[in-house]
Amino acid sequence: MIPSFNFTTIPHILFGPRKLNELFEIIPKFGKNVLFVIGENSLKNSGRWDAIVTELIHKSLNYYEISITGEPSPRLIDDSVGKFQHKKLDLVISIGGGSVIDAGKAISAMMFKKDSIKNYLEGIGNKIHDGKKLPFIAIPTTSGTGSEASKNAVISEIGPKGFKKSLRHDNLIPNLSIIDPELMISCPPSISAACGMDALTQLIEAYVSPKGNPITDALAINGMKFMCENLLKACSLGASNIKVRTAMAYGSLISGITLANAGLGIVHGLASSIGGYFDIPHGVVCGTLLSEASKMNIKKLEEMGVSGREALRKYAQVGALIKGKNTVENRDIKDHCSNLINTLNDWTDQLKLDRLGKYCIIIDDVDKILNKTGIKNNPVNLNREEIRSIIMNRL
Amino acid sequence: MIPSFNFTTIPHILFGPRKLNELFEIIPKFGKNVLFVIGENSLKNSGRWDAIVTELIHKSLNYYEISITGEPSPRLIDDSVGKFQHKKLDLVISIGGGSVIDAGKAISAMMFKKDSIKNYLEGIGNKIHDGKKLPFIAIPTTSGTGSEASKNAVISEIGPKGFKKSLRHDNLIPNLSIIDPELMISCPPSISAACGMDALTQLIEAYVSPKGNPITDALAINGMKFMCENLLKACSLGASNIKVRTAMAYGSLISGITLANAGLGIVHGLASSIGGYFDIPHGVVCGTLLSEASKMNIKKLEEMGVSGREALRKYAQVGALIKGKNTVENRDIKDHCSNLINTLNDWTDQLKLDRLGKYCIIIDDVDKILNKTGIKNNPVNLNREEIRSIIMNRL
Repeated sequence: MIPSFNFTTIPHILFGPRKLNELFEIIPKFGKNVLFVIGENSLKNSGRWDAIVTELIHKSLNYYEISITGEPSPRLIDDSVGKFQHKKLDLVISIGGGSVIDAGKAISAMMFKKDSIKNYLEGIGNKIHDGKKLPFIAIPTTSGTGSEASKNAVISEIGPKGFKKSLRHDNLIPNLSIIDPELMISCPPSISAACGMDALTQLIEAYVSPKGNPITDALAINGMKFMCENLLKACSLGASNIKVRTAMAYGSLISGITLANAGLGIVHGLASSIGGYFDIPHGVVCGTLLSEASKMNIKKLEEMGVSGREALRKYAQVGALIKGKNTVENRDIKDHCSNLINTLNDWTDQLKLDRLGKYCIIIDDVDKILNKTGIKNNPVNLNREEIRSIIMNRL
Repeated sequence: MIPSFNFTTIPHILFGPRKLNELFEIIPKFGKNVLFVIGENSLKNSGRWDAIVTELIHKSLNYYEISITGEPSPRLIDDSVGKFQHKKLDLVISIGGGSVIDAGKAISAMMFKKDSIKNYLEGIGNKIHDGKKLPFIAIPTTSGTGSEASKNAVISEIGPKGFKKSLRHDNLIPNLSIIDPELMISCPPSISAACGMDALTQLIEAYVSPKGNPITDALAINGMKFMCENLLKACSLGASNIKVRTAMAYGSLISGITLANAGLGIVHGLASSIGGYFDIPHGVVCGTLLSEASKMNIKKLEEMGVSGREALRKYAQVGALIKGKNTVENRDIKDHCSNLINTLNDWTDQLKLDRLGKYCIIIDDVDKILNKTGIKNNPVNLNREEIRSIIMNRL
């Protein structure tokens, strides 16, 4: 029977090459005063930012600009809000990777608050955000985090007392997301690989999540199909192929919709704890752990027998999909799961995903990581030693 | 390559048995003053309306009530708006079939307007609605029109100068839809059949529409799967089975999401013109024409050769799905299409869908119907004689 579920809307979406051009017709519907949140480099180096500014001036729109580097910290959000809170603003627009979109999402959500974002972060503060925000438009330049369709902004404070936690409310889903694959063409292979593996992780974790429903299941499988066919191409000879980038952009978008409604699993549990302690890109943590985590989950589900069968069948479905098959026979579940693990292993190698050790994570760090790791909506419970072995195998 | 597309959000959804109970926690988030739009009979006869009223009083909520019969006319909407426009209202809630939901949607959208809804109807008025409305919650009691997830309200004026046209704006998508299959258990077989065939028509027409995109395709196939497995059951021995009703409710919901984003085809083109002239339930027109229209579309697509292949493959995919198959080989396209036509024919008989003649439509009416029929987003162009033969075969 179809389980009961809640589904928390999705943004209005404009999807396709050159859809960015429609932005300038859309802004006036919200107002004349825009705060742009952008990254430090690529948008400006490509000349695109200058073209955007020219058009803004041509349309007599007032704009402010914040450039950010790295993943957003509470301080960055608080300072930005403090700087722009008293200006007349109608709209916040982020153009960039997941960090830029999360930053813009958080800034738009804190614009009517008088205190720090820390007070509203899950597991950190004691206050619950009420969803009041400035309208927000997300324009991703990577195919990765899915933040363009999700209801949370991930905020990080890195260090011994570090954390990586979400500001979350149904109303934080962007009002509009413009997904223009032309913006992703210049994304370098290492970032395309990390972001792509993050999106794939999100699709797989949402698909096998016990919180899933028929809508997230149908979309996740569909997103994975495009992503699995194009991930390696996007990081190599197909990097400048708009068809490949369009497929990756679609997979990323769908990963945001599915994670917002079905949740995530152990890989993102680890990305949260590891990302709090160490300065490691989110996509790299997810990408480097996906294969080992999937292997562990599948092993545990096989041991569970009947009660693990539904999630196991879903892992098998992903394995079958990679081989271009739509249907999974009971007798083939084990083979398809093996195929999935082997393929993910292979992609981890081919995409040259860094091991955790590259970011100065050593054996002595593992216990403190484990102390802060939750399994989120993982399809099977994992004990401390099982989670330890996932980390150890990618140290 | 994935085509460019726009996707106009979906409502926040609460789906599952007894989800109606959550309504009373939700209303205060919008305010204390609610206008309910309900049908004339079933809700009251079942005792559910009394239970709702008791709970509203218990929560100290102020409510007004409009009962409607049949499909909403411009006059009904204008009169209702006139009656309640000057009262303090925070929210409109429809509980009922498609007509009731369309009425509530239209009333919420006209609450800030000073003139008749006629001025804003597509193809009738000259004004464009700006999307400003009172918040609106849709609670369907049939599995049919998908209005719980769509952005239009169908308004009918029946007679020689009649029409059946939409008030449409992206912002008219309900703020929240509560899909509680328990509300559908008491729906009689003939209404379950007509509504179910309407929803199935919407899923098929959106799926084969040239305006479709990967999101609508993935969802439409998923919705059809549940609907095809349960349609006959819902109209016979499975009518009181909550699992069956849940599947049908899901199919209807998905049909609304897909039609809002991919559009509809010739069946709904005919439902619009026929429904303007004659007092025939919308579900019956759609249900009675689906089989013949699909047969005509498939015949035309086969004649087109290469350019028709994509839509033909989609029809074949539906035929395969009915047989429980996920994959369509090129060599089997013709067989799957035949299977689809035969199955739809068979269902039309089994569900005892009325012929058009039962509603006093005669041969002499066909030309005036044709004069007012558009093919909407039909996958293939049809000439006047081809559309005529669809009608004639179901007269």
